Amino acid sequence: MSIPLKHFKKGSLKPHLPEDGVLRFYSMRFCPYSERAALVLAAKKIPHHKIYIDLSEKPDWYTDYSPLGKVPAIQLSAVADQPALVESLVIAEYLDEEYPEPSLYPAHALQKAQDKILIERLSPAVSAIYPVFFTADPPADALQNFETALDVFEQELKKRDTPYFGGRAVGMVDYMIWPWFERFPALKLLLTDKYELDNQRFGKLLQWRELMLQDEAVKQVALDSQVHAKFMQTRLEGKPNYDVAFEAL
Amino acid sequence: MSIPLKHFKKGSLKPHLPEDGVLRFYSMRFCPYSERAALVLAAKKIPHHKIYIDLSEKPDWYTDYSPLGKVPAIQLSAVADQPALVESLVIAEYLDEEYPEPSLYPAHALQKAQDKILIERLSPAVSAIYPVFFTADPPADALQNFETALDVFEQELKKRDTPYFGGRAVGMVDYMIWPWFERFPALKLLLTDKYELDNQRFGKLLQWRELMLQDEAVKQVALDSQVHAKFMQTRLEGKPNYDVAFEAL
Repeated sequence: MSIPLKHFKKGSLKPHLPEDGVLRFYSMRFCPYSERAALVLAAKKIPHHKIYIDLSEKPDWYTDYSPLGKVPAIQLSAVADQPALVESLVIAEYLDEEYPEPSLYPAHALQKAQDKILIERLSPAVSAIYPVFFTADPPADALQNFETALDVFEQELKKRDTPYFGGRAVGMVDYMIWPWFERFPALKLLLTDKYELDNQRFGKLLQWRELMLQDEAVKQVALDSQVHAKFMQTRLEGKPNYDVAFEAL
Repeated sequence: MSIPLKHFKKGSLKPHLPEDGVLRFYSMRFCPYSERAALVLAAKKIPHHKIYIDLSEKPDWYTDYSPLGKVPAIQLSAVADQPALVESLVIAEYLDEEYPEPSLYPAHALQKAQDKILIERLSPAVSAIYPVFFTADPPADALQNFETALDVFEQELKKRDTPYFGGRAVGMVDYMIWPWFERFPALKLLLTDKYELDNQRFGKLLQWRELMLQDEAVKQVALDSQVHAKFMQTRLEGKPNYDVAFEAL
């Protein structure tokens, strides 16, 4: 019994999911929040079934599995009533508590709080860059605001003086911010002036990016910039094609 | 050496804060996010200095104490470099880990995750009601959307079948959502049609509200509906007067 590799959409037949107690992971292949959960699942080697949901036209039956109809969601099929958890950070923190190896948050409460604040601080970068990815006419200062927001992360890596935000090993901050850093390089394919982050200003961050690409969980989950650019193009044209993720397979 | 009871604003003399290792709590007296932190501090009886910040005209020196210039912030003056933590939920979770009595989150990871999701689900109610509080011409469907969002909480209390969201005692969900439930009744003072929540539809929630008013931390921190309405009026008029909180004292 295998689940088809495609994004289920309105009108798709409801897949019959195996009642084997294995965690069910509902996501959209290009959704960066879904990717956060996928990275934690991969890093902790947690067995799971993957079910992809078309976000533009969600299948009606999806709320039978995940009552809020959101992605990402994980459904605990081994637990009574098979509850579904939503919100990428809530899922990541739940998995980190329930599957402690490797532990992704620092043990110390203060460092953990500082890591959570750092994760929140990616929002301004994301807000600044989204119109560049997904609208035909982004604000003129978008890239400038984006870079100002990223300075925080460059400075923080300098301050921590470790290869990863998590220290000598990849940690929660690394995985929670990675999905956007995976997507940023698609800019050089999308924009006519081949935009890239400045190697002087963002030296540490670019080194970190190279290291992250070697991480086993990232290798399993990440998509190539070209695939991201291809998806963004379909979305810009108003017809997001989620299944381009699977076309090269 | 005492800190004046007022909101410090641009031009205010920088207060000389005692170097006694006691936690410093920066807030605005009417800010619901600040109140979340205040409730956790009160519930756990954590000694702290209170410094109120005028959010419309922040004092220049505030970033010396809290680098991001946000409220709420707690500054750990006993720790090297006296770091400041921001984001109400991050602060609340930090305090819950660092000062475990009474413990506010459930011990079980799944219940904890479900509580975090429930806290997030207040956002639609807050988004719906804010224009009613703070703009002259709120959308016609604002109150209807507000009530639909609150249904979730009524249903959840029914499902949990306990007096509090935290069970038999007040827990993290209760404190994290309380500040808004404290403010909602100001509507009957502000609106000409004396709006109140329907006692049939929101019976459990209204009972919960009465119980919460008896909680020691809430008693210490909460302001009266009349004071909230007075502040909202000054804000509606474009001249928020934060110090009305202290006028009746």
